Order: sequence, then structure tokens, then C-alpha cells
Amino acid sequence: MENGHTTNAAERVQQSKRALRHELAEGALFTDQYQLTMAQLYFERDLHERPAQFDHFFRNNPDYGSHQAGFCVAAGLEWLLDWIDAARFTEAVLAPLRAQVDASGAPVFSDSFCNWLADIGSFESLSIEAVPEGRVVHPGAPMTVVRGPLAVAQLLETALLNQLNFQTLIATKASRVAEASRGRPVLEFGLRRSAEFGANAATRAALVGGAEASSNVGASYLMGLNPRGTHAHSMVQAFMALGEGELGAFRAYADSYPDGCLLLVDTIDTLGSGVPNAITVFEELRAKGHEPVGIRLDSGDLAYLAIQSALQLDAAGFDDVGIVLSSSLDELLIFQILAQIDSEAPRYGLDPARLVARLSMGVGSKLTASEGHPYLDGVYKLVSIEQDGESKPAIKVSDTPAKTPNPGDKSLYRIYDARGRSTADLLTIADADAPSGDAEIELRHPTQPNTRRRLAPDDVSEIEPLLTDVVVDGSRVAEPAPLDELRARRVRDIERLDPGVRRLVNPHRYHVSLSTDLFDLKQSLVETALRG
Amino acid sequence: MENGHTTNAAERVQQSKRALRHELAEGALFTDQYQLTMAQLYFERDLHERPAQFDHFFRNNPDYGSHQAGFCVAAGLEWLLDWIDAARFTEAVLAPLRAQVDASGAPVFSDSFCNWLADIGSFESLSIEAVPEGRVVHPGAPMTVVRGPLAVAQLLETALLNQLNFQTLIATKASRVAEASRGRPVLEFGLRRSAEFGANAATRAALVGGAEASSNVGASYLMGLNPRGTHAHSMVQAFMALGEGELGAFRAYADSYPDGCLLLVDTIDTLGSGVPNAITVFEELRAKGHEPVGIRLDSGDLAYLAIQSALQLDAAGFDDVGIVLSSSLDELLIFQILAQIDSEAPRYGLDPARLVARLSMGVGSKLTASEGHPYLDGVYKLVSIEQDGESKPAIKVSDTPAKTPNPGDKSLYRIYDARGRSTADLLTIADADAPSGDAEIELRHPTQPNTRRRLAPDDVSEIEPLLTDVVVDGSRVAEPAPLDELRARRVRDIERLDPGVRRLVNPHRYHVSLSTDLFDLKQSLVETALRG
Repeated sequence: MENGHTTNAAERVQQSKRALRHELAEGALFTDQYQLTMAQLYFERDLHERPAQFDHFFRNNPDYGSHQAGFCVAAGLEWLLDWIDAARFTEAVLAPLRAQVDASGAPVFSDSFCNWLADIGSFESLSIEAVPEGRVVHPGAPMTVVRGPLAVAQLLETALLNQLNFQTLIATKASRVAEASRGRPVLEFGLRRSAEFGANAATRAALVGGAEASSNVGASYLMGLNPRGTHAHSMVQAFMALGEGELGAFRAYADSYPDGCLLLVDTIDTLGSGVPNAITVFEELRAKGHEPVGIRLDSGDLAYLAIQSALQLDAAGFDDVGIVLSSSLDELLIFQILAQIDSEAPRYGLDPARLVARLSMGVGSKLTASEGHPYLDGVYKLVSIEQDGESKPAIKVSDTPAKTPNPGDKSLYRIYDARGRSTADLLTIADADAPSGDAEIELRHPTQPNTRRRLAPDDVSEIEPLLTDVVVDGSRVAEPAPLDELRARRVRDIERLDPGVRRLVNPHRYHVSLSTDLFDLKQSLVETALRG
Repeated sequence: MENGHTTNAAERVQQSKRALRHELAEGALFTDQYQLTMAQLYFERDLHERPAQFDHFFRNNPDYGSHQAGFCVAAGLEWLLDWIDAARFTEAVLAPLRAQVDASGAPVFSDSFCNWLADIGSFESLSIEAVPEGRVVHPGAPMTVVRGPLAVAQLLETALLNQLNFQTLIATKASRVAEASRGRPVLEFGLRRSAEFGANAATRAALVGGAEASSNVGASYLMGLNPRGTHAHSMVQAFMALGEGELGAFRAYADSYPDGCLLLVDTIDTLGSGVPNAITVFEELRAKGHEPVGIRLDSGDLAYLAIQSALQLDAAGFDDVGIVLSSSLDELLIFQILAQIDSEAPRYGLDPARLVARLSMGVGSKLTASEGHPYLDGVYKLVSIEQDGESKPAIKVSDTPAKTPNPGDKSLYRIYDARGRSTADLLTIADADAPSGDAEIELRHPTQPNTRRRLAPDDVSEIEPLLTDVVVDGSRVAEPAPLDELRARRVRDIERLDPGVRRLVNPHRYHVSLSTDLFDLKQSLVETALRG
């Protein structure tokens, strides 16, 4: 290390501070305190190894206020499995648990409980089923099912929800931005306003959900992609302060990156200075045998500026260079900008489709913070526990019937209609009443007894089980899928949605239904619980 | 490691995957690509070591739609400095840069540039001034000032913004939740819906900004606090499925935690089952010589349920046990709940102040995701660069005058009025025109030439410089302040705000003003830039 000032000792302090943070706050203790207090309670009653099942699902699609998601895109599973594989109850992790005392000064966690955690060491006693990453998922249908010893499955809750809630939230937002962008490339730029290192999960989720690339250098490399980026206003400012002006800055950029010349044109005056200076430099580049890449517009009326910039570029013979739009973009703003181009471009003799075809979208904070709905309401609910060698379905009764989870071990199917579009997800009692293409399928509303739909065999083109084994007795059953495969799943699932469900604003509600047997089981459990 | 299934080889793969992620995506490459392309451009032109200054500030307080922040609480500096101290341009970090190629297959980053990064190795050539963590900060006033070689200071931008934007955002939200809670304890519960490992930064910021404690186990230990938490609905469900019911679950909890017995009472029916069962268990506890801690209400009309629960608890002789409220709380909902208690409690013969005094607030997703405004718009702007041995102020002209940054090296003062309340923050040309208590102080609006305010010596009780040295030539000048000190700064600064600025809804706008000399400098630079 070429390091005059910092001593090696200081460096070791910093490295060990980071190591401490990784071990203490990103490993097995990346959890809520109540998971540990409950686990200890189960341990003390010898319930800790009782086989149990938890379902993970979200209750509502994100509603961004002025616009609403009609579906979500599953993401985060691989990083969750990586976390599970690495999480360990080492003595370093257990030391603060052993030291924690309550108000009376007594230890909160007993030696015998901490020793049990040390003995199990990890989450390897669990089995996990999941809807694969990249797939379209709907409210109320389990995305993830965890089976294993009650206390161990309980201890996984927080980390599971954290990883899957967040990446699903961002992948969903990215899929909407991509939908609004009409197939034009979306670049994720959100790192500077994201939640600390959660930014890397956001970049991954955006890449799964709809972004073509990201400015985030490290996360892009992790995902096997080249990061994207050119220059900021500060570079133009620096050359201005040094007396070389915007043109000097652009010339320097073209000189350093002759085959990647994309210039930010709004530091001073987009149409009066930025675009003309860019054209000057593009002409110089072309004279040297290089083709310019494009310009970036980062402020103002982006539709108007894109039209006017295109006119200037076309007139100068640069009708192929790209135009990147950025500045607080989200799906609704992109939708509006493209609609404005459709309506205004012809007035200037421009073909709107040709203009749109040269655009890319740089989308930052509003994507990686999911502006308008910044968290997904995913939950993790106990649905069964073993008693006397038999699995007992568990229930939680809520004043809001929609919040009562569907009990017991279940199967999840996606049913496609005669056109090949997905028409409903169906939850059944596991394997007991699997739907078949040979008989009528009854779809029951999850809470309303008199709302039902019947699908005749002719109405159904395909019945697809959605949950697949991903961890069996602690071992991952498959290699992680490459990014391209996750993206292909998303594209295919979105194509098979009804256009009404894909709508950015006021989408149709997709049905997640119960089989009649499951509906009846749920009702009887609720009645029993309310009787006490 | 007690580990039957997982082989040591698989474990090593997982540990090295995590190590790779830490090194590649959380160290020196936790940045945007354009920082590196700009740095290389400066390197190629021998501008990379030119002394420069960047200011970090945010443009707007968060506006949550139905309510608005009147100020922010600075947070994140210590973790930023930890990141800086640990970030290294090692060969492992440089390898992907060296390998990155452009569309034509040519390397994006030259060997000589990568070798320069290896030579500097770290950010140790920078000096940093900052407003201390925990202090109240306002839009447009620099929170952080970075001085050093142009390319190195540029390379810091993304990580600096990421850490300070996010923690300031969450500390601000936490301060509002605390304000709404009238001094009652706020517990942060947001981990499960936070942005992956960014959750730990959120916990820290919440603890700085107003939360008393957190459910996040690892992050609480890192901050030297005990995490908080009791049990979830799932524990009650498990006992119900096993035939022991809610009462059995509560008895088990009381048995395991006799001196920390806080029971979640809404799994079945809050007033019909949960509270009566809790009272039964509390009576049993008291008979054994223990005092119960309280109940938690997690759904429904929380003000009504708090009143009715208090009536039941009082009637049973438990008028001291606490009531924790949770369920999608934020500052506005807490404000509403306490207002409802003020108005409704007397109808039932309850003193509202006594009821409020037994409440605690569990606040989750809406705090750690800053619902309503999920990112802070902090920016990092070049304000000067050296030319011929002289510092040249830099400018960026914007069509929106408020977005034109204040140029050059500056000082920042907070001015307190005769009552001792902060009345304005004043930016001046560094040391050139420091305000004095002996003469009239002229405060200029940052963009409007004819808007000014004059403070006579009698109007001013104190003039306080806000920026302090935190890093000098790469070395931190002080030990990190303990959490209590950060919290004390916040409490003191908020007490010294005008009540209108503290208001949760529609607050007064606090003035951040320029000295006349600085205003004139800015105008002349804008005019020069527009002349080209």
C-alpha cells in the first residue's frame, strides 16, 4: 500500500471496524430482537424443533398515488440464499447475545439457548420453495415457502422479508419504467440517493426488472455488466473556470473517449450553447474517423428539448446519434414525455417514432427509492405446525378479512386462458385438489363466500405450478440463473398478462383465488379461533 | 462448525462470494462510472491534481405531500469517514477497470490511469469540513466541503452523497416522529422493509434523529444499545394451532420473560380476547412478585383501542403498564392519534395526558423508507479550482435560478436572534466578510436581487460558525462522537428553532442567505458564463 500518512495500525482499525460491521450487523444478527426472544421461548418449551411452515407473500401491489402497479416482479431470492448460506451463529455473533441483560440486570438469553444456536450454527435445517426470480407475482399468492424447525424458520423471517421485499419492490418499479419507455434502453443512475449499501441490491433488482445497465460500478461488475456513464456538469464547470469553456470541455471529452462520446449539454444553455458546441465537436470527431454516440439532456422541458436537439443534430447530419434523457424521471414522466413527443414532433416535421427510437432513459432516485411507494408490504406468516406427528394448519384472525392468511400447506398454480394469457393464480390444499384441464375449475374469492368464477376446460390452455424447490434440507438445488434468464422470465410473463393488468395507471385487478376445499378450511379455522 | 450437510468447500465459496461483494461493490468502486471517466480525462490533461473544492448541500427539505419538513438533521458523516478510511484502490479493485472495454473493444481505462489510482491508493489527499452530525441543517447551506486534487475529490462524490443523503433523510424523518410523539419513546422496527443492508444505516440515522431504540439486533449492538422486541402474532398462532390458545401463548411468554412481559394483544380480538387474557397473565405474574411491562396494539383504531385497553387495565389495577402502538405509524398518524386521545379520553373519564404518558410508538417502514419523500436531493458541486496558483470560483448556470450553486470558498454562520432562536444561516466569501455582532448584518436572498433583510446588533445574540474540520490531509481530526452527543446536538438545535419552523405541517421557511459580496460574485460569474 502506497500510503504515507495513514499508519498500518490505523488501517487495521478501519478494516476491523468494517469486518465487525459485516459480522455483527449483516450476518445472523441481521434480524429483529423478537425473533430471538420467540426462538428462546420455543427452545425452553421444547417446541423449537417442531416442524412448521411459513408462507411469504405481499398483500398489495405498490400504489404510487397517481399511478398503480397491476403486478410485481419477483427478485432478491439469489441474494437471500447467499445470505442464508453465509449466516453463521459463531461465538463472535453470540457474544453480544450472551451479554445482553434486561432491566433487572438478568441475562435475556440463557447459556443453553445460545449453546443451541452455536450447535445448529446455521439455517441448514430449512427447506425453501419459491417462485423463481424474474417471474410476475401477485398479492396474496405465496412467493416463498419455508419449512423446517419452528425456531429456525422463525429466525429467518426478518432477513427473508428484507431481501425479497426490497428487490421485488425495485424490480417492479424498473419493469414499469421499461414499460413506459416503449422498449428503449433504461439506465439506472440511483446510487447517490439510495439507501447506503442497499444501493447494490437496488441495482441488481433494477437490472432484473427492466434496466439495461447501471452507473453503479461495483454492482455492475458483480452482475457481469459494464457500468455506464460519461461526465457530469462539474467537468464542464471545471473547464469554464479554467477559461476553456464548454467547447473546451467537450473537445477534451471527445479526445479522451473518441468512440464513446456522449456529451451533457445543459450546463449553460442547452439549445443556445450545449447542442451547438456538441455538434462542433461531433464534426471534428467525424473528420478524424469516429462516430459520436450522443447527447444527454438533464433539465428543462425534456420533450421540447429532445425535439429541438434532434432538429439541430439532423440539420448537421447527425441523425443517428442518441439522446439520453434524465432528471427526476419515473414511469409517469416518461409516459408523458413520449406522449408529448408523439403530439408535438410532427409540428416540426419530425417523425415521432424515429425520435423515440434514438432515446435512452437515465432513471435515478425515483427508481431506486421506489418513489410514491417506498416499501413493499411483504409478510411471513405461520401457516402450519406439527402436533402429534400431524401438520396442524395455523390461522391469524383479523378484523380486516383480507389480512387473514390462507392456512396450511398449499400449492400455487397459474392458469392461462384460451388466448394463452394468465387469467388467475389458484391456491389449493397441497396436492389434495390439484386443478386439471379435464374438469371445470372453481375459483373462489379469498374472503367473499359468494364470489366465485368457473373455468370450463375449453377456457384453459395451460395450468402451471409456480413454486419450485430451491433449498432442500439446507442445500441449494440449482445453480443461480444468469441475469439474462431472469430477464427472459420477466419478459415472457409480462407478455402473457392481460393488457389491462399491464396498464401503468388504474390497472385491472388480477385474480388470486382459492380452491373450494381451501376456502372451506380457512372459514372453519376462523370460526374455531373466534369461538376461542 | 457443526455442519453436517454443507461442505467446507461450499462454505468457502459463500464466504468468498461475500468478500468479493464487500471488496468490489462496497469499497472504492461504490461509485458511478462517470466519476472514473472524468477522473481519467483530468489525468490525461494533467488536471487531476489541480486543487479544487466541492460543496455538498441539499436543495429542498423533504415534502411528504400531506406534511413537510421545515429543516433536516445531519447524519451519516461518521460512516462516510469510515468508508473513506477503508476504501482502497487495490489490484483486486482495479482488475475489472483494467478489463473494461468499450464498444470497439478498446480498454476504457488506460494502464497509466489505473496505475495512478494504485499509486494514490486511497482518498488520503483530501481535507473535509462538515456541519457536525446531529445538528439541524437547512437547504442550500453546505453540509460538507471537500478540498483536494480535482480527480480525487471528484471520485468521492457518489459515496459521499449516498451516505449523507440517506442518513440525513432518515434522521430527519425520525426527528419528526419524535416531535409528533410528544417526548414518548419511539422504537424503530423497519428492518424487514428496508433497503437490504442499508437498513443498518437507517437504524443508525433513526437513533441519531429521534428513535430511542431499535428492533435491529446487529445495528443496535454496533451502536452500543440493547435491541428491543418481544413477540409476533406467529407465536400466538403457534400456541393456537397446538391447542393452547392465546392465553397459553401469553403464559408461556410471561414464564420466559417474567420481568419483560409485553404482550401483543391483537391476534384474535383485541378487546374481547387479547387484553382480558393479558390481564389474567399480568395478575398471575404479580402474584409471583413480578411487574408486567405492557401490551402492544398493532391494528385497528389505535386511539380508541388505547383508551379501551387503558380502561380495562386500570380497572384490573394495572394503571402503570405501558401501551405500545404500532401499525403503519408515521408522524402525521401519531399526531392524529394523540389528538384523538386528547379529545375522546375525557368522555371515558380518562386523563388524556396520563394515557399519553404510558404510550410508546413502534415505527417501521414509514420511518426507514421515509415514506412520502424517499430520497434527499443532496448534490455535490464544484465551486472552485486552482489556476495559475489562484483559486478560481466555478459556476453552473441553470434555467432555474435556485439551482445555480453558490460559487467559491465560503464560510457558513448561524445567526441567533435576541431570544436566542436561530433566525438565519449566512454564507459569506470565506473569511473575507465575516459577520460581526458590532455592525448591521445584511442578509441577501440567494437569487432575488431586491430581497434583503438587515439585522441590527441588538437583534443578534450569537453568531456561530457551523463548518468544522473533520479530515485534514487525509487524517481524521477527532474521535467519533458518542451517540448521546449527536442526540444532544439535535435536541439543542431543535429547541433553538422558531416554533413555526418546527411545525409538522406547512412549516415556516428558514432563511439561508448570502452576504452582499457573495451575492455580487455569483451574479458576475453567471453573467460571464452566459456571455460565453
